Amino acid sequence: MNKINIGLIGYGNVGSGLVKLLKERRNFIKEKFNTELSIKIVCDRSIQKKKPAGFSSAQLTTDYRNVVYNKDIHVVVELIGGLKPAETIALESLRNGKHLVTANKELVAEKGKELFREAIKQNRNIYFEASVGAGIPIINAVTDGLAGNKFNGLYGIINGTCNFILSEMTKTNCSFAHALQEAQKKGYAENNPTLDINGMDSVHKLAILTFLTIGKFVKPSEIFVEGITHIDHIDIEFADSLNLRIKLLAIAKEVDNELEIRVHPTLIPKKHPLASVNGIFNALFLNTDPAGDILLYGQGAGQMAAASGVANDLINLATRHSDNAATRIGNLSREFANVRLRKMDQIETKFYIRFMAVDRPGVLAKISGILGQHGISISSLNQKLRHRSSAVPIVMLTHLAKEKMIRLALEKINKLQIIKSKTIAIRMENL
Amino acid sequence: MNKINIGLIGYGNVGSGLVKLLKERRNFIKEKFNTELSIKIVCDRSIQKKKPAGFSSAQLTTDYRNVVYNKDIHVVVELIGGLKPAETIALESLRNGKHLVTANKELVAEKGKELFREAIKQNRNIYFEASVGAGIPIINAVTDGLAGNKFNGLYGIINGTCNFILSEMTKTNCSFAHALQEAQKKGYAENNPTLDINGMDSVHKLAILTFLTIGKFVKPSEIFVEGITHIDHIDIEFADSLNLRIKLLAIAKEVDNELEIRVHPTLIPKKHPLASVNGIFNALFLNTDPAGDILLYGQGAGQMAAASGVANDLINLATRHSDNAATRIGNLSREFANVRLRKMDQIETKFYIRFMAVDRPGVLAKISGILGQHGISISSLNQKLRHRSSAVPIVMLTHLAKEKMIRLALEKINKLQIIKSKTIAIRMENL
Repeated sequence: MNKINIGLIGYGNVGSGLVKLLKERRNFIKEKFNTELSIKIVCDRSIQKKKPAGFSSAQLTTDYRNVVYNKDIHVVVELIGGLKPAETIALESLRNGKHLVTANKELVAEKGKELFREAIKQNRNIYFEASVGAGIPIINAVTDGLAGNKFNGLYGIINGTCNFILSEMTKTNCSFAHALQEAQKKGYAENNPTLDINGMDSVHKLAILTFLTIGKFVKPSEIFVEGITHIDHIDIEFADSLNLRIKLLAIAKEVDNELEIRVHPTLIPKKHPLASVNGIFNALFLNTDPAGDILLYGQGAGQMAAASGVANDLINLATRHSDNAATRIGNLSREFANVRLRKMDQIETKFYIRFMAVDRPGVLAKISGILGQHGISISSLNQKLRHRSSAVPIVMLTHLAKEKMIRLALEKINKLQIIKSKTIAIRMENL
Repeated sequence: MNKINIGLIGYGNVGSGLVKLLKERRNFIKEKFNTELSIKIVCDRSIQKKKPAGFSSAQLTTDYRNVVYNKDIHVVVELIGGLKPAETIALESLRNGKHLVTANKELVAEKGKELFREAIKQNRNIYFEASVGAGIPIINAVTDGLAGNKFNGLYGIINGTCNFILSEMTKTNCSFAHALQEAQKKGYAENNPTLDINGMDSVHKLAILTFLTIGKFVKPSEIFVEGITHIDHIDIEFADSLNLRIKLLAIAKEVDNELEIRVHPTLIPKKHPLASVNGIFNALFLNTDPAGDILLYGQGAGQMAAASGVANDLINLATRHSDNAATRIGNLSREFANVRLRKMDQIETKFYIRFMAVDRPGVLAKISGILGQHGISISSLNQKLRHRSSAVPIVMLTHLAKEKMIRLALEKINKLQIIKSKTIAIRMENL
């Protein structure tokens, strides 16, 4: 019987879910995996108020050092989120010979390299399944299930809040503000949803996935990000009529030996499997060699789904206690992907561009003239939806165009008197 | 450095793909996983004819005993398929202290229990990722990635040939025979496609998945199976008009403490993620607790995709050489799912039924009268497509009905003079 003593730091939503799950599955885990997972101590700064049932007062603490320096603890489970004091807790846990399980995406994204190095040095392991996609076995798939593969690209819908909002806008043709309200009413968005809707949550997850697949550590601050707050339901309607869907995609791919890495609203073909990922569901689409295209889909958030990810980590850790972090994430001594980051300005995609212009002869000539001067060629033009307002939407799809050229052209066009509101440009991805 | 010596038995399509892949990825695997995977000996009954490059004649053999009893070999990779002599090879390999990697679905489905027992007894491991879904990390997800979860049900599109045929019939409205020809032309179906189109290939894979998820060994012969040869393009058209798609589904689920396990063409809602799995792609939809609904999707067949599954197994085996089979598949000493198989006659589903009847007053009354006598109630009726032949299709959807009652009612109805060809009944699944 593997007997694993756990020190839990962070008794919030996921922490209390984990306590509940391990209690409920105690016999199941014992009998199936020959493993006893016992939470020996729980640390939370409001532990006195929360008072989890089933623990003596000696097992409750507000000081993480009572966990990290506790000789009886084999594994520290860090579920507080954020960088401080999570980073200190994680590093001190490893240095004190504990394995680490965390659901903290920011921690792994920002400090993963240091943590993995320390874990290997100490011959300890780090598990972090719940940091991306909660209970969907994404981390496990890319580290273990696809171990011998090379990853050419990955495309993820990895933020449930944004996906719910965009799906809701698509389904009911409502505004962004209304969809956000719906998300908050249903508990799918925080009171302060900034980190979700500005894309930063996806950036953290993308940084983790990029290291695990392509093998390059990219700092979150180096990843281009654009949120979904500027998406209008007009754009969703236009997209629909073009057989496209708008999704907030996290993208990393190698192009000509450079790495493109970015998070932004993206138009994808309706028939692509990612286009049918709706509501709070998450999905990761991987282009691998030689296993081909792989999609992993499921519930990417929620108390028990996240607790499931943590519990799986604990079981894998327990049944493989002789492994260290190198077994899972590979050798760090070599820079796997000796690739440079491609500067955002140099990235080429097709674009959907919506101008709001006065309805007057010569407007189109003016706009397309400026685009032409910047080397941007138009593949199709759509003006069919007429609005009663003084400005009408003009929608264009471009051929491949450089970011920089689009940016310069739109800056110029936005200054024209015929343009009545800021032009919307949405990148397209040829999936 | 882990140095793993491999004995390969079976140098066919997948075997030669594996040799190619391990050669190409030699440095990658060495540097990333600190692992050297060397194929030391290759056995095939036609080895003289095939003569793989890069091996000395001493490394080639037609006698599996030269592999299984070879002291230098750590892992035997069995890629010959079928039960004989694969079973002997597998058991003798384990008894001689070798780990086993296999892509043989029939072997694992029929003899899994004995093999796992032997492996645990010998403190050795068995990996078989490529036996289900080739390179899609399905086995890895259910054994490792979702370790602490309970599985309420699984629904798989796990035969690429059938899925290609049904997708082709949907896309081009062609006949079964024509779609099968297309599949053969493209290399997606064997010259003798029987095991694919009669559903037996899916049965083998379902038996493996049911053990790994629900925890019950079910013999392939105990699994109800119905192939796709009777599916007509009329049914696909009707399904489409009802917002449904026909897929060959492998289903296992617990209902009232009994296990339903079956493979048959199934009508599912168009908006369900499984409905958009087209062509040769495979997908497994899992209903888990507490991780929720999970979908794994990818290329379920093909030389290099299957070789990828085998190579992943070898890497995982190499980096975890201290594990045995119990680490992965759990303890066998307990019967996890102490559930009985539900007899097919007792299973309740909704049905799509298409009668071909003469177009005459009173026909409908006669048919629905017999259905009523058997306690089958109709939820909708559709007769809109008229054909020029003397018989017209009458399509009904039923409420939940027992298999036995449907069977008895249709036997009676098929004997009526007004019925011009055998009635088609397709089960529906409420996903």
